[in-house]
Amino acid sequence: MLFLVKMTVNIPDSVPKDKADEIKKVEKEYSQKLQREGKWQHIWRVVGKYENYSVFDVKDNQELHEVLTGLPLFPYMDIEVIPMCKHPSSIK
Amino acid sequence: MLFLVKMTVNIPDSVPKDKADEIKKVEKEYSQKLQREGKWQHIWRVVGKYENYSVFDVKDNQELHEVLTGLPLFPYMDIEVIPMCKHPSSIK
Amino acid sequence: MLFLVKMTVNIPDSVPKDKADEIKKVEKEYSQKLQREGKWQHIWRVVGKYENYSVFDVKDNQELHEVLTGLPLFPYMDIEVIPMCKHPSSIK
Amino acid sequence: MLFLVKMTVNIPDSVPKDKADEIKKVEKEYSQKLQREGKWQHIWRVVGKYENYSVFDVKDNQELHEVLTGLPLFPYMDIEVIPMCKHPSSIK
Amino acid sequence: MLFLVKMTVNIPDSVPKDKADEIKKVEKEYSQKLQREGKWQHIWRVVGKYENYSVFDVKDNQELHEVLTGLPLFPYMDIEVIPMCKHPSSIK
Amino acid sequence: MLFLVKMTVNIPDSVPKDKADEIKKVEKEYSQKLQREGKWQHIWRVVGKYENYSVFDVKDNQELHEVLTGLPLFPYMDIEVIPMCKHPSSIK
Amino acid sequence: MLFLVKMTVNIPDSVPKDKADEIKKVEKEYSQKLQREGKWQHIWRVVGKYENYSVFDVKDNQELHEVLTGLPLFPYMDIEVIPMCKHPSSIK
Amino acid sequence: MLFLVKMTVNIPDSVPKDKADEIKKVEKEYSQKLQREGKWQHIWRVVGKYENYSVFDVKDNQELHEVLTGLPLFPYMDIEVIPMCKHPSSIK
Amino acid sequence: MLFLVKMTVNIPDSVPKDKADEIKKVEKEYSQKLQREGKWQHIWRVVGKYENYSVFDVKDNQELHEVLTGLPLFPYMDIEVIPMCKHPSSIK
Amino acid sequence: MLFLVKMTVNIPDSVPKDKADEIKKVEKEYSQKLQREGKWQHIWRVVGKYENYSVFDVKDNQELHEVLTGLPLFPYMDIEVIPMCKHPSSIK
Repeated sequence: MLFLVKMTVNIPDSVPKDKADEIKKVEKEYSQKLQREGKWQHIWRVVGKYENYSVFDVKDNQELHEVLTGLPLFPYMDIEVIPMCKHPSSIK
Repeated sequence: MLFLVKMTVNIPDSVPKDKADEIKKVEKEYSQKLQREGKWQHIWRVVGKYENYSVFDVKDNQELHEVLTGLPLFPYMDIEVIPMCKHPSSIK
Repeated sequence: MLFLVKMTVNIPDSVPKDKADEIKKVEKEYSQKLQREGKWQHIWRVVGKYENYSVFDVKDNQELHEVLTGLPLFPYMDIEVIPMCKHPSSIK
Repeated sequence: MLFLVKMTVNIPDSVPKDKADEIKKVEKEYSQKLQREGKWQHIWRVVGKYENYSVFDVKDNQELHEVLTGLPLFPYMDIEVIPMCKHPSSIK
Repeated sequence: MLFLVKMTVNIPDSVPKDKADEIKKVEKEYSQKLQREGKWQHIWRVVGKYENYSVFDVKDNQELHEVLTGLPLFPYMDIEVIPMCKHPSSIK
Repeated sequence: MLFLVKMTVNIPDSVPKDKADEIKKVEKEYSQKLQREGKWQHIWRVVGKYENYSVFDVKDNQELHEVLTGLPLFPYMDIEVIPMCKHPSSIK
Repeated sequence: MLFLVKMTVNIPDSVPKDKADEIKKVEKEYSQKLQREGKWQHIWRVVGKYENYSVFDVKDNQELHEVLTGLPLFPYMDIEVIPMCKHPSSIK
Repeated sequence: MLFLVKMTVNIPDSVPKDKADEIKKVEKEYSQKLQREGKWQHIWRVVGKYENYSVFDVKDNQELHEVLTGLPLFPYMDIEVIPMCKHPSSIK
Repeated sequence: MLFLVKMTVNIPDSVPKDKADEIKKVEKEYSQKLQREGKWQHIWRVVGKYENYSVFDVKDNQELHEVLTGLPLFPYMDIEVIPMCKHPSSIK
Repeated sequence: MLFLVKMTVNIPDSVPKDKADEIKKVEKEYSQKLQREGKWQHIWRVVGKYENYSVFDVKDNQELHEVLTGLPLFPYMDIEVIPMCKHPSSIK
């Protein structure tokens, strides 16, 4: 089941650079593990912004919520979730 | 070069049903031809709306503009274009 | 799988009253059939508006899209879909 | 009398983690007591957000205001209240 | 139980002047009857607009919905409903 | 001359509780004095928010500005002013 | 008493050119009469738009409402009213 | 050449009262000097807000930018600039 | 004196195709004449939209207003005007 | 390949003046180097704001992202990217 998710990151100045770097490192590992499992199908950077659009393939809403709230950067993200389904013109 | 494109369709009542059906038929062929060529990489339906999110892979802005304005439904669409690039966490 | 759905109805003047009444009658039957099947769990009227908030329990995004686009009033509705899941404080 | 209420939580960094945890614990007890009394009929988590949609059944506006401002997380919430009533298609 | 209600009127050109005048006449009678009954406590014109702010005192949400949808101008109105209660500084 | 005024209060965390309580106490006295003088005709709490809608009857714009900027909570308020006049359907 | 008023004109296609020209002619006379009386103190065109900002000096809200609703173009205008008063830095 | 300019002031709590008072004093002198020179033709306070609408008569965009960025309160202002020209109905 | 101007074109269905084509032809000539005169310095198409961003170099606001309202497509355009001046980092 | 980019700068009070001045100095050198290389074709100041509109000519989305995120002021900027292409009326 597919969802388009837009994530905008905003780490406040009050987070020390060391801590921010550590969070980003864990975030990357977390993201890549989910990509290898096939749950996080795409992640693209939006040009000129600290923002991404991602496509998730999960079994239900509950799993998507757990994946998103498990993101190390979750406390510093503004997230928008768009439920998607097959388009009649898609050849896939 | 990747772009996320959101297309919202709004065919006014003044378009006769026959004409609308014909436009949609040509639109589907146009879309599937571009999908087979690899320029229109993804098309997903947004749940509960006459709207899609698509991913295009084109050589430049000019080509994207020609592809989009060539859509048979273009006169009845509201289109939003989001330039994207590789995300540092992407494993692809 | 639960979704909160907001539906705002706007039937244009160009639809004759007879046709509008017929659509509303079929809409009601369609809605009540889905309520009896347990897929359309709640429907509430928003005070002072031709608008409702509904809760759907469906097996996936695809089914929700089919239910919503199958609404006789779908061409005259503005629809917003909010994916929901269990809240940790819920006693249900 | 029914109200749909959307609550978005935003606890600022200046609240120490201990205090935040204590507030959340009391919040949960407060919410569950009201659920058992039938005043707080539903609470759902919005996927990917620290946000919920809830349905309250109270005797009047005054009672709803007291319930909401009594929430331990009230100072950190953005709240939207939507008055609702019976929908003519509802089978309940 | 008090509600502040903002009503913005927009009668389309397609309604003939005779019919519009007749609707406004019945609207006025309807409004004044509810004012005399104490249900429609205040109605003020917003300066420079075909818009009013009104205060209603009704027994519940259901009654407010019936009063508002019973307005002869209802099909041509955009309505916003704000539930209110006693303010701790009020001397009334 | 009537004005509808919406006041949204937002006292930042940097104001100590003692000072906030003192400001609220003086605010209440200030408000009640103006209510007794007939200049502040109504004040209602918006359900679920630290916000009020008020009706002022003042002799001109200048007086309204002085009344509003004289509010002890003025530095912490977002204020919206709506000029009103007699509605042709009003029976008052 | 001063008000800044923004007027955006939007004459629909359904108004014949002759009628539109006649309305604009009467509008100009109406505006200039009020300017000569000192009630309409300024009128400026917004660059690139069919829109103006005007300053009115009237005795109360009621008079402003009558002036604005008396505009021949009133049915085709979107109007925003901003109450103003003397600024402490003004040398006038 | 005329411009309507809306200035909204928001001095953060972190600016000490002494410094804020000094800035406002210099701001007033700066504003009155420009008013006497005829470059700052009008300044009005918006009722109920720490905000003004002003009219500037300058020789070009560059001069307006220098005047505005020279304001002692500039770092604490949100500024909106609206280019204006003669209105065909104006009698001036 | 430089202005950035965003023009969004929306020709309604009620304009016959012949007339629309004629307007577009005259529009192109009008635009190119102004480009050759150096008043219309740049015109770029926004990808995926019937919209352009243009840069004008005119002697004052009045001239810009005349140029814009003289556009054959003016009645079908939504126009946004942004006054610009030299940037301190510009090497031109 | 052309992009219009709007950059709004907002340096928080927590950045010391020395550091802000140093960042702005490096920013200017960075910008002018890219202007000399032809990648940053235009930069204009928006009148009355700490904001610019710029035109970039880059080989693809990836290069634009690198240029923009390489800006010393990037962490303090809100950036909007608009893909552009040749306009059929352009004489260039």
